[in-house]
Amino acid sequence: MNEMPLSASPWTASILTIFPDMFPGPLGASLVGQALSNGRWALQTVNIRNFATDRHKSVDDVPFGGGAGMVMRPNVVASAIDSVTSDRSDRPQLFLTPRGLPLTQNRIESLAKGPGVVVLCGRFEGVDQRVVEARNLEEVSLGDFVMSGGELAAMALIDACVRLLPGVIGAKASLAEESFNEDLLEYPQFTRPNMWEGRAVPDILLSGHHARIREWRKSQSEAVTKSRRPDLWSRYLSRQASRGAAKTPAEAETK
Amino acid sequence: MNEMPLSASPWTASILTIFPDMFPGPLGASLVGQALSNGRWALQTVNIRNFATDRHKSVDDVPFGGGAGMVMRPNVVASAIDSVTSDRSDRPQLFLTPRGLPLTQNRIESLAKGPGVVVLCGRFEGVDQRVVEARNLEEVSLGDFVMSGGELAAMALIDACVRLLPGVIGAKASLAEESFNEDLLEYPQFTRPNMWEGRAVPDILLSGHHARIREWRKSQSEAVTKSRRPDLWSRYLSRQASRGAAKTPAEAETK
Repeated sequence: MNEMPLSASPWTASILTIFPDMFPGPLGASLVGQALSNGRWALQTVNIRNFATDRHKSVDDVPFGGGAGMVMRPNVVASAIDSVTSDRSDRPQLFLTPRGLPLTQNRIESLAKGPGVVVLCGRFEGVDQRVVEARNLEEVSLGDFVMSGGELAAMALIDACVRLLPGVIGAKASLAEESFNEDLLEYPQFTRPNMWEGRAVPDILLSGHHARIREWRKSQSEAVTKSRRPDLWSRYLSRQASRGAAKTPAEAETK
Repeated sequence: MNEMPLSASPWTASILTIFPDMFPGPLGASLVGQALSNGRWALQTVNIRNFATDRHKSVDDVPFGGGAGMVMRPNVVASAIDSVTSDRSDRPQLFLTPRGLPLTQNRIESLAKGPGVVVLCGRFEGVDQRVVEARNLEEVSLGDFVMSGGELAAMALIDACVRLLPGVIGAKASLAEESFNEDLLEYPQFTRPNMWEGRAVPDILLSGHHARIREWRKSQSEAVTKSRRPDLWSRYLSRQASRGAAKTPAEAETK
């Protein structure tokens, strides 16, 4: 994978957090960690606490209007953001919060094609909404569940971007055939042994008939998407319809 | 928070991975890490590679039917699963994959109430589908994007569960008012200073009128949910309708 030229300024993730020691953490291992060591991407962590203005270095305060928990102060968070964007304002600035728009593979792909990301990791009850508006942060949600902070969400987002950067994963084919391409989930995979605990690999996969294998995989993808993800399935059907496919989806793709 | 009695066998997460060194990683820090140190939950990592049967300790092989990438072998993965479930079969066994059902806060809550979880972290192109069926793994997806492996997804899931365990977060109120309760996103938060960069905190929050503040927050939750998450919004409306609420949602809740 060393044939890819290295950019002078690689894709860069700047993370604003009160737990900078969490990074790189899991992002330092495996393919993504190797790519970090090789300079295919760069990681900057900024400790939000360094921008606190009082002698206690406090980053949070009680919420106006009452309620449990603490809220991150707008001035402290804004100073931390400004410290990484003053000289480079070309990167999207994301704030990971369950209030945000759900993250999609489409958004990951567009982030991976850009110069990098600035990611604010919230903690406590959240971040003062004024800084989200004043700095025009893009509110993004990993999914419909709540975590104790944005750090793990930031890592998940960065992992998903970095694996798409040139030279990080060897075979482009393995990116083209995965879940969410064309709004379909991926087909099931099988490897050796041929027979395991009385369960055989589907015959078609041993046939060597590439066109029929492709057709079978497509039908498997369609079946699992239809049963588990009616939301993706209806997007897929509309897309097929708008292409003017008169045949059934599987026939239309494998003709 | 030390008044909560410690269980003899705390909530336990067993992680099956080829990267055991990634753990606890971020799960060793912050509230969740303190709870780990205090014995409120336990973490076990199992290196799948230890169950490889050949002298190269290989865990994967080429996919039947062709295609890029490698697939994790059913026999090796099954042995790793069986090593943690043979004496304790009472925990849900999850497999994190973009093919799975999307994770929800409801599922997190039910997992947190149980004895713990067994989580299989996939890598490469996936896991032989026969082991998923033979061991009845629950396929769960973090969201509609693809990561380089299941480890970060496992961490996100465990973080979301552990923060709900008794004694981990002080105030129960802070859990009751967050996103996805009642299918609504959380209202915006504000803290000091009162005026920042020419932006004032909404007057209502300084009024001291608790009922009106609650009403305002509810209307803010409804507005952000309606605009960003039509899917949650329609579930919320159906739920309101099935309760026989004849008034508008905000009136019905604040009466």
